[in-house]
Amino acid sequence: MSEIITLTTDFGYRDPNVGIMKGVILSTQPNATIIDITHQIPPQDIMRAALCVGSFREYFPRDAIHVVVVDPGVGSNREAVIVKTRRYFYVGPNNGVFSLLDSEPVKAVKIDNMDYCLPIISATFHGRDIFAPVAAHLTHTPIDEFGPEERDLVTIDIPRPVMEANGNITGEIIDFDHFGNATTNITAEMIRKAEAAVGHKKVEVHLGEHRILSLSYYYQSAHDGKPGAIINSFNFLEIFIPNGNAEKEFNIRKGNAVRIVFGQAD
Amino acid sequence: MSEIITLTTDFGYRDPNVGIMKGVILSTQPNATIIDITHQIPPQDIMRAALCVGSFREYFPRDAIHVVVVDPGVGSNREAVIVKTRRYFYVGPNNGVFSLLDSEPVKAVKIDNMDYCLPIISATFHGRDIFAPVAAHLTHTPIDEFGPEERDLVTIDIPRPVMEANGNITGEIIDFDHFGNATTNITAEMIRKAEAAVGHKKVEVHLGEHRILSLSYYYQSAHDGKPGAIINSFNFLEIFIPNGNAEKEFNIRKGNAVRIVFGQAD
Amino acid sequence: MSEIITLTTDFGYRDPNVGIMKGVILSTQPNATIIDITHQIPPQDIMRAALCVGSFREYFPRDAIHVVVVDPGVGSNREAVIVKTRRYFYVGPNNGVFSLLDSEPVKAVKIDNMDYCLPIISATFHGRDIFAPVAAHLTHTPIDEFGPEERDLVTIDIPRPVMEANGNITGEIIDFDHFGNATTNITAEMIRKAEAAVGHKKVEVHLGEHRILSLSYYYQSAHDGKPGAIINSFNFLEIFIPNGNAEKEFNIRKGNAVRIVFGQAD
Repeated sequence: MSEIITLTTDFGYRDPNVGIMKGVILSTQPNATIIDITHQIPPQDIMRAALCVGSFREYFPRDAIHVVVVDPGVGSNREAVIVKTRRYFYVGPNNGVFSLLDSEPVKAVKIDNMDYCLPIISATFHGRDIFAPVAAHLTHTPIDEFGPEERDLVTIDIPRPVMEANGNITGEIIDFDHFGNATTNITAEMIRKAEAAVGHKKVEVHLGEHRILSLSYYYQSAHDGKPGAIINSFNFLEIFIPNGNAEKEFNIRKGNAVRIVFGQAD
Repeated sequence: MSEIITLTTDFGYRDPNVGIMKGVILSTQPNATIIDITHQIPPQDIMRAALCVGSFREYFPRDAIHVVVVDPGVGSNREAVIVKTRRYFYVGPNNGVFSLLDSEPVKAVKIDNMDYCLPIISATFHGRDIFAPVAAHLTHTPIDEFGPEERDLVTIDIPRPVMEANGNITGEIIDFDHFGNATTNITAEMIRKAEAAVGHKKVEVHLGEHRILSLSYYYQSAHDGKPGAIINSFNFLEIFIPNGNAEKEFNIRKGNAVRIVFGQAD
Repeated sequence: MSEIITLTTDFGYRDPNVGIMKGVILSTQPNATIIDITHQIPPQDIMRAALCVGSFREYFPRDAIHVVVVDPGVGSNREAVIVKTRRYFYVGPNNGVFSLLDSEPVKAVKIDNMDYCLPIISATFHGRDIFAPVAAHLTHTPIDEFGPEERDLVTIDIPRPVMEANGNITGEIIDFDHFGNATTNITAEMIRKAEAAVGHKKVEVHLGEHRILSLSYYYQSAHDGKPGAIINSFNFLEIFIPNGNAEKEFNIRKGNAVRIVFGQAD
């Protein structure tokens, strides 16, 4: 089995908590290759964690173990799970962070075998006491050893765009990246389908009062200070300002509507 | 000997300094497993560094080498030390960052053998010139090789709570974590002792005008927007707001008094 | 060849992009030792990236592969390059980030062999699609395999200080570090040369209205709250406030003039 373990948390970088999880992993599996995805998921933002997993998972070698700790219910009766899919293992709380996996689960178990956890389990830091040691053991222990089957894997609803009869699509901003680019929930595939349906008319992107009159192929093809729209590297429609920060320069927020509007024949 | 080297500094993440320390370590010990604890100790905050070491050290395998570089006196005549305890090695300035070790020192040496340092030692970056190469050599070199015994290991006073005759305890806020939870210097053990002494009466936690009427077992057991108190994962009393940020939402600071007050019989 | 790969980007720490690059590297080269230099280069600041490379490169073992992704022109017709120098390999966009290498290039190639890239190349994330897989392959593939010679390596002008006939030097602030210390472009070597030319007179450092009357040998040798000047660990003149933050406490910015002024005989 793989010894690659990835970590995605909302722990930030100033506390020793991420380092502690790594110490716990190395205490059990000294050969682990531990990769930080990010520790800046906004505190307790399960949706962002789920979207993050959806974007990074497929770039790792088969059998990598993806640990996700965004866990507002830590210490309550929410369950801890391991999910095995076609390509990977996922370890974390059963609260929706695993809503966008690489395939349907092949198997999911509820972690209840305390032999694979630290001897004392705190009410506030399961990343250290449960998820890190379980991930380390999972590099060389069959999934069935960790507990009984979990039949009720929690998933959250990711908002979905709506396509109208005329092909126009209404979606929304679901995230911003480090550069202030605004990701929408409209995928390249939806736009292609709509284009095919309406017969390749001219496409505009509407965001509040902004009218973006075409899709860019790369960031510098739009004009400085003017918003552009592009299919980003994860195949979602994204709003950007070349050499600028759309999040700060426009007054836009998560949840704002973004519309794909087809005009005259192209 | 172990090849795990941990790094704790106040260097932040935007400068190349941490990466440079890793390059220096790998130049001497290509098999080192280097683990970042944090690089966001507030600049020159020796107390925070000491508390951080106290919280993460025990989660690493035996013989791990813990390097700590929070070093306002860099380049002056403050000494550089290696401390060996029962389980670990510690490398850094002799300025108090090693005040909370896992055991009494078994041995401490003053680093003065320049063979294990970079050829040129700057006045401003001993992390690169002394501590990184010394840690790398320490993976395969006996501690005595690095210099003579250090008989005067500097320690700093961590504020201690006061227990009154009636069992009430007065401590203080000593730190905030990434979530804005406020850690106090009151330990679970002190509360247990006081409870035993007063005969298991009802316990309240007082912080300024706030009265917290019981200890929570997990974060979500308190009410949103109302402060809760909990024994945290490092066994200290902690003040929190469920799904909130106590540091920002209350007007509290490091040094503010926190009281454990026993009431009527429970 | 080495399996050390360093990463320097402007991607920040909150998005999964750096983790994704590591997944791509490990998918091709599971034995890579991947070292983060920084991911907080200010967005699209090619000068800062070049200065950063100039400061960290030499501390890594020979044959390390330095990947730099600060890439405002991603997806446009700017080229992707590998540069081999006497000691290292550099991989990134051909936009000036490689202006301060360890030696003249021994060889530079334009990356155009798509066999070493991901199957689909996006317009917005060449770090993932080109630079990460190329770096991973470069650990075991000769540089000529990646494309034809690049004869036009882009470099940017780093501002240079001016020395007057009387030995006085006018330079400027080129960067601030995490502690708020202000780095100038005046090197120790320039000051030594000027001193030799003017016959070891007393040296002052002028920054706006501030007069610093001598060079410090270490940070704590200056007085709290008063600015000091020191040769920093990269051999540049640096302005600092002991236990303070010069960037915040003085009103100084990148580009502000800094003067070395020789007075009477020392």
